Amino acid sequence: MTAKQLPLPELVNGLVGLGVPGVGLWREPVARYGLAATAALVADAGLSVTTLCRGGFLTAIDPVERAAALADNRAAVDEAAALGTDTLVLVSGGLPAGSRDLAGARERIADALTELGPYAAERGVRLAIEPLHPMYAADRCVVSTLEQALDLAERFPAEQVGIVVDTYHLWWDDRVAAQISRAGAGGRIHSFQLADWVTPLPAGVLNGRGQLGDGAVDMRWFRDAVAEAGYRGPVEVEIFNDGLWARDGQEVLAETVTRYRECVVGDSA
Amino acid sequence: MTAKQLPLPELVNGLVGLGVPGVGLWREPVARYGLAATAALVADAGLSVTTLCRGGFLTAIDPVERAAALADNRAAVDEAAALGTDTLVLVSGGLPAGSRDLAGARERIADALTELGPYAAERGVRLAIEPLHPMYAADRCVVSTLEQALDLAERFPAEQVGIVVDTYHLWWDDRVAAQISRAGAGGRIHSFQLADWVTPLPAGVLNGRGQLGDGAVDMRWFRDAVAEAGYRGPVEVEIFNDGLWARDGQEVLAETVTRYRECVVGDSA
Repeated sequence: MTAKQLPLPELVNGLVGLGVPGVGLWREPVARYGLAATAALVADAGLSVTTLCRGGFLTAIDPVERAAALADNRAAVDEAAALGTDTLVLVSGGLPAGSRDLAGARERIADALTELGPYAAERGVRLAIEPLHPMYAADRCVVSTLEQALDLAERFPAEQVGIVVDTYHLWWDDRVAAQISRAGAGGRIHSFQLADWVTPLPAGVLNGRGQLGDGAVDMRWFRDAVAEAGYRGPVEVEIFNDGLWARDGQEVLAETVTRYRECVVGDSA
Repeated sequence: MTAKQLPLPELVNGLVGLGVPGVGLWREPVARYGLAATAALVADAGLSVTTLCRGGFLTAIDPVERAAALADNRAAVDEAAALGTDTLVLVSGGLPAGSRDLAGARERIADALTELGPYAAERGVRLAIEPLHPMYAADRCVVSTLEQALDLAERFPAEQVGIVVDTYHLWWDDRVAAQISRAGAGGRIHSFQLADWVTPLPAGVLNGRGQLGDGAVDMRWFRDAVAEAGYRGPVEVEIFNDGLWARDGQEVLAETVTRYRECVVGDSA
């Protein structure tokens, strides 16, 4: 998503040229390019698919909507398996129209995972609950903290359900250090994603994430925290930013690698 | 602020006409109308001043900036005392430019309160730390949860420092019930403010609060929670909303009273 203006072949070529070993994919561009074609493209390039984004939106009350959401999530699991990634990221969903019941919505997510967790595990795919920043609690994701995500995930085996540590969503929370340790101890850090927090936020607050180093997030702190918690998996950079998307995609990829080296790799301050 | 388009005399007349017994004031309109004149205006109308907004912005590192912030907060305390309110609301401040140290910023707030708490108490004014939604953590307030606010407040006597329960900032947090109980047990709920959460958020995310009943917040739940925690003080409605401000102010006041009766007063569902 950081360079979503690039068609998949150009994205893959760019990453290979920069020495990036893997790529996190979203379902929509995969569907446009074709699932089998995408799997062949990345495999032929020697890239791993780190995660597939995204399943989720599991909070509907209406039975028809719930059945449709479950079917869509099973399809997402199948797509993840076809792409050869072991992780499907879940954005859990917001409040149904007219509802003010956050606790009830979270319970419906748990209900859905009871079905989806085993389905995914049978296909070699782990579900990763991504807590989203509390500013999305009403309309995108009622799971707002890493603690809430773990409270949900720990009802299931770790090989079925884990969590995503995304700096953009979690940086403000003074409980995040303890929760990263908890997640690591349980083997539940299934993905680690980076974006910086910059202000002012744009209307709709979706596409204002910052390039690494431009904002308030201490990237090295997060890097060290997940490492100390035992995480050895890929690090994804996922920046939704209208400004980045308006630029040359290859330039954005190169800048992101440079920023990653400056802000994430290297010694702590 | 809900009807900030109204000059103070019209605001006061409107509230008296609607049977509203008190008003929360902001420093800027008070300064424009004159401190003594405002005090006389509200006293002559028989209104209480529920709170004065706002002090705070106590996170600066630079010594000159810190001294200026402390002086401004002492002035705010003096103004609160002159207006006859017992509560000054604090918006604590964001990260200084270039800083990523949330914990350090929170410690500087505590340092400032060591000086400001006694100064306020000597003048019959309580400081009320308002946790702001985490989307403001970088640029307005590093105190993002009621738990963090209480962790700060409890370092001081309750007659010096308490907290604000504002539905807009706290509604998403599944720990808020326990923290409201904690605040009430300690006699630290110094203010209770209402606004609803509506989406999409506007650019800058400051002036998109919802009229009571339009959004995701369960107002009666909050009303009951603070009541069960022992709170018997005033209830303020504080809605920053460009749409409300563009309308006739008296109409907005009347609508707000109607919504308050519908959404807050009356039996729980």
